[in-house]
Amino acid sequence: MQLSIVTNQVFKKLPMPPTITAFESSPDRGRGLARDMRVRWALEEVGQPYEVRLVSFSAMKEPAHRALHPFGQIPTYEEGDLALFESGAIVLHIAERHAGLLPDDANARARAIAWMFAALNTVEPPILELATARLLEGDKPWSKERLPLVKDRVRDRLKQLSARLGDADWLDGTFSAGDLMMVGVLLRLKASGLLDEYPNLAAYVARGEARPAFKRAFAAQWAVFTGKPPIG
Amino acid sequence: MQLSIVTNQVFKKLPMPPTITAFESSPDRGRGLARDMRVRWALEEVGQPYEVRLVSFSAMKEPAHRALHPFGQIPTYEEGDLALFESGAIVLHIAERHAGLLPDDANARARAIAWMFAALNTVEPPILELATARLLEGDKPWSKERLPLVKDRVRDRLKQLSARLGDADWLDGTFSAGDLMMVGVLLRLKASGLLDEYPNLAAYVARGEARPAFKRAFAAQWAVFTGKPPIG
Repeated sequence: MQLSIVTNQVFKKLPMPPTITAFESSPDRGRGLARDMRVRWALEEVGQPYEVRLVSFSAMKEPAHRALHPFGQIPTYEEGDLALFESGAIVLHIAERHAGLLPDDANARARAIAWMFAALNTVEPPILELATARLLEGDKPWSKERLPLVKDRVRDRLKQLSARLGDADWLDGTFSAGDLMMVGVLLRLKASGLLDEYPNLAAYVARGEARPAFKRAFAAQWAVFTGKPPIG
Repeated sequence: MQLSIVTNQVFKKLPMPPTITAFESSPDRGRGLARDMRVRWALEEVGQPYEVRLVSFSAMKEPAHRALHPFGQIPTYEEGDLALFESGAIVLHIAERHAGLLPDDANARARAIAWMFAALNTVEPPILELATARLLEGDKPWSKERLPLVKDRVRDRLKQLSARLGDADWLDGTFSAGDLMMVGVLLRLKASGLLDEYPNLAAYVARGEARPAFKRAFAAQWAVFTGKPPIG
């Protein structure tokens, strides 16, 4: 019995780290735009180690991965008996269980979560539409004439976000999971040049990228793409 | 002093109900597709009374409303010192504070929240794109040729969701905020006919609409459009 108790104590001190999934070969070529980046970043912010299982595009369509992620995407998150999908849900799960990503005050906490949803349901949809216009409809006869309309819909959201942010460092007080998600979403615009039209948003994203936790997460996903270890 | 204490007790027993905002003149003509419907439904599921402040399209652009909602949309949620925006965040806030929308088990709770994010960040974006294609680009020369592509992207998601739902009543055990949000998102497809291509999803949405709380919420927002009280 004594041995069993000791063993349990050891397990409590050394729990199995969660396992996330990421692209075996990321379409963004390691630029940190895939959604595993948001989860890696959150785990780095709260100082939690994690394991990564790489998934190929063919494996993502297989029943084993679909059991974890009904829409055949990454990331997923496995921790003991719990399996989660959706980067927003995973980041919120991490933020609720570890200090560092949500304020203690209940109202401030609810507002930080509101910014997570705003990033994913208000700001990201037009950004996804721009990506779709380029990747899936770039060869269509309407592409050139349509792209400015799609870009203007992105600008509408950036203008509103820029007005709210003003000259603050973060969206609502100290850095939170809401900022993590918003920066993660805005990063997808870097190559478009649209972000540079709103200097305070470009500076906001740069502040996110300058965080040590962001850098560690970025290096880890970059290492998957280059095949070189992140440290060394 | 005694009077003051009694007064506080009375206030505690009769807290001010939260106030939400909704369209003064909803573009969906009362079909329950505006996002206040999701919040009304959640409040009805947990049995919480609420007040509604109607906002005109011009007022939504004004600083007073922008202070509540940076993106100038509805709904917002005001309760004492707390002001929230984003229907996902508001529904989660309600679900976390009242019984009826999230399971007690921590893992099941995290999974229900994952379905909320899946509804808003994976299923809704292509549905929003379809709405945009119709409303904002319906008069463009590419509209007719492009629409089938947009519809197929919606079908991709519906097929995956249909496969996961199978013959279950709800996405993960009993009805949760995840189902509320998914049904709320899928409702937007009713007029397109796309939902009918997946009979189990059409039945899933119908199960949502058959819930007494849904019916009460629907009647309340319909009453705003018709100008007639919901009951009587």
